[in-house]
Amino acid sequence: MAKITKRSEDYSRWYTDVIMQAELADYAPVKGCMVIRPNGYAIWEKIQSVLDRMFKETGHRNAYFPLFIPESFMRREAEHVEGFAPECAVVTHGGGKKLEEPLYVRPTSETIIWAMYKDWIQSYRDLPLLINQWCNVVRWEMRTRLFLRTTEFLWQEGHTAHATEAEAEEEARKILQIYRTFAEEYMAMPVIPGQKTEKEKFAGALRTYTIEAMMQDRRALQAGTSHNLGQNFARAFDVKYQDENGELQYVWATSWGVSTRLIGALIMTHSDDQGLVLPPRLATLEVVVVPIWKGDDEMSQMKEAAHRLADSWKGKLTYHVDDREGYRPGWKFNEWESKGVPVRVELGPRDLQRNEATLVRRDTGERTTVPQDRILEAIKDLLEDIQSSLFRRALEFREKYTFVVDGYDEFKEKIDEPGGFFLVHWCGDRACEDRLQEETKATIRCIPFDRPAERGRCLLCGRPSDGRVVAAKAY
Amino acid sequence: MAKITKRSEDYSRWYTDVIMQAELADYAPVKGCMVIRPNGYAIWEKIQSVLDRMFKETGHRNAYFPLFIPESFMRREAEHVEGFAPECAVVTHGGGKKLEEPLYVRPTSETIIWAMYKDWIQSYRDLPLLINQWCNVVRWEMRTRLFLRTTEFLWQEGHTAHATEAEAEEEARKILQIYRTFAEEYMAMPVIPGQKTEKEKFAGALRTYTIEAMMQDRRALQAGTSHNLGQNFARAFDVKYQDENGELQYVWATSWGVSTRLIGALIMTHSDDQGLVLPPRLATLEVVVVPIWKGDDEMSQMKEAAHRLADSWKGKLTYHVDDREGYRPGWKFNEWESKGVPVRVELGPRDLQRNEATLVRRDTGERTTVPQDRILEAIKDLLEDIQSSLFRRALEFREKYTFVVDGYDEFKEKIDEPGGFFLVHWCGDRACEDRLQEETKATIRCIPFDRPAERGRCLLCGRPSDGRVVAAKAY
Repeated sequence: MAKITKRSEDYSRWYTDVIMQAELADYAPVKGCMVIRPNGYAIWEKIQSVLDRMFKETGHRNAYFPLFIPESFMRREAEHVEGFAPECAVVTHGGGKKLEEPLYVRPTSETIIWAMYKDWIQSYRDLPLLINQWCNVVRWEMRTRLFLRTTEFLWQEGHTAHATEAEAEEEARKILQIYRTFAEEYMAMPVIPGQKTEKEKFAGALRTYTIEAMMQDRRALQAGTSHNLGQNFARAFDVKYQDENGELQYVWATSWGVSTRLIGALIMTHSDDQGLVLPPRLATLEVVVVPIWKGDDEMSQMKEAAHRLADSWKGKLTYHVDDREGYRPGWKFNEWESKGVPVRVELGPRDLQRNEATLVRRDTGERTTVPQDRILEAIKDLLEDIQSSLFRRALEFREKYTFVVDGYDEFKEKIDEPGGFFLVHWCGDRACEDRLQEETKATIRCIPFDRPAERGRCLLCGRPSDGRVVAAKAY
Repeated sequence: MAKITKRSEDYSRWYTDVIMQAELADYAPVKGCMVIRPNGYAIWEKIQSVLDRMFKETGHRNAYFPLFIPESFMRREAEHVEGFAPECAVVTHGGGKKLEEPLYVRPTSETIIWAMYKDWIQSYRDLPLLINQWCNVVRWEMRTRLFLRTTEFLWQEGHTAHATEAEAEEEARKILQIYRTFAEEYMAMPVIPGQKTEKEKFAGALRTYTIEAMMQDRRALQAGTSHNLGQNFARAFDVKYQDENGELQYVWATSWGVSTRLIGALIMTHSDDQGLVLPPRLATLEVVVVPIWKGDDEMSQMKEAAHRLADSWKGKLTYHVDDREGYRPGWKFNEWESKGVPVRVELGPRDLQRNEATLVRRDTGERTTVPQDRILEAIKDLLEDIQSSLFRRALEFREKYTFVVDGYDEFKEKIDEPGGFFLVHWCGDRACEDRLQEETKATIRCIPFDRPAERGRCLLCGRPSDGRVVAAKAY
């Protein structure tokens, strides 16, 4: 088994090693693209199934819109084309002929979807229209990293249409709350919900909301965004509805998405020098059982005992009995650790004699010996404990590396080492935001929803501010 | 509500009308592309969930490979590039620059997947490798039809690697059996499993297996294919494994797929002049309840009674209570019929008085009145009966229009009217197959697996044949 680089040596190499060792993904022979291997895709399927349920419970339905967007559609919304056109892949030939109009491979689907909404929305009775799509999108990236930034990635994009601004605003915030719940309760990843600055908002949006997480190297990662698009796309595509008084009104819009990037966030929140650590709620395999033996007689006895034990969990746990011959137990332990299985059950001849088994938790390495007749309950408890303690640990980590800073010198001193989230005052001016980024490479991640009102002075220009924003270096 | 063209008037317009009326799909403003609307996508989600379960139960895992395939990869397998390159969409620009090597938007993923398998397969221990992918593909089509033939479509493509030819053959046939089970037991669509001729096989395959279904207009529709690819792709991408004796061997391959085309097949197997008919096992909504009232007093009483009745089905049936005001019951009946809901429950004041309700089945229009305390059971029985009778009806239809024909004149006379499946002798020669297609527009759909040995003479040239093939006009 290849060795995993230590986090303290090279965080970036460690990240790639964890992915390779757990066989989550691989580099594709196409510039900037990745292959999501079965172990990685299984995590994405878990993410999809939970979010899809949450979206459906709040009245959304799935649909599918075309991959290709005519160039002229991209150009309809001025900010949008400026933001996205430069990073698009463009199809110029089809069926052996040059196309009359180039087709953009979707970087996001607002334009093609609002072209359809024009036909589907006539009256207030057609609203709200709550549609989501699971698909691939392409953004031409110069510097790519597995899961975090790839030319093609998988995501879901919700696109909703509403009669009023208030409804669109409520929707955009409701979805951000769903993202937050998912991040914290399933990924065990604490996030700060807030609003993006004008500079950082989505191209074409009125307001962008975000959840921001802190990775182990103290950088920020934007884990999901939800946009109140106002009437921009309705105006660009002329989508009006007749209200209850018979008047024509432009429709209000939202869009929102999370992507396979979440898998990168998961890795950089919990994993360690032994490899992947998965929160139990997103693990496709919860338990691995490793029988231990010496000699052939013991082998068949221990294999049988391991299967007998595990078979009683059918339908209650996802498990695998690793009874391969020709591999030493220690080798198997390492392998399953590197793959992130939350709980390992070791079963040796002495355990069997005593009707016991040993449970080892992946996150801390802690071992407990439990009677076999209570093992299912013990595993269930352990899985819950791992889930909550992963969250707690990540939250403590974030709190440890969150600094309230008022002086620019102190900020510049700390931003690289130790790094972290910096709660700073900012005047709201784009010039100060640009300067911060130029001089320190940090960006304003968000204006947190729950920031207390507090009078202060802008970190850069000293002008008044009435609350702190989160600044950090980001992925 | 728009009127649906009668099948007898114009089958092709009827097909489009059914789709539009049920809001399954819409034309996209991109040539040859479609939008799958929520009602249509819900059917696809049902199809996905059943097939995905079947694939996983037989040991397959999902993964995701890149959308883009470098031109040079396409050219590695000679037959494959000849078959697919002419119908590809080609990306020539990315990130504002001309690419050094054009990228093909995948028409199918053998080449990119086998380029990866080269890295993943070293030893017999790595085999079999059983991977499936759910994704979009693009084939530049000149003449498109919603669901049946669109430039972009959704599908699953399985790609497996095996140590021996026998294992690859077993896999290809096992998957065809899964497709058959799905078509017959879920879609209620009888199919003929068999082998494609050399002319009709997949570009790059050794052998292609297919399931062929008969549509209501007596044309054939290829509903799923499974290919034994031999060692063609392993040779093209130099994928070898070390066997148990330490010798290097080329790997054996299969690939197989079904697509959103199945939704077109579903429509053309069961639907009628009132609109969509869905087999209950693929209906996302099994029952609609329509309360009937006159005047405001009765309205609130009937609405409440309808909800009370339906709420007792929670978790046991998928249902919707259509209690909209301002629409007449007859209008609602038509609407739900056109959307294919298998069972309608009508609840009027007299029914309520008698503690009864009226069940109407979508497929035959037959009405039954049942006591309310037995209604759940009655609906469950009805759903099963609809499922099996749709299959039986489709099978009877196919049998009625399947002809054993020995003379070419008789064939030419019947191929257009009434049309159908023709069991004919064929010498096995490509020249005769080409001539049949040129002169009659019919093709050999498959060499059925279960054809009896029977000596005869080729329909076209009179040379000997030892069994019949299925010839038909096809979608």
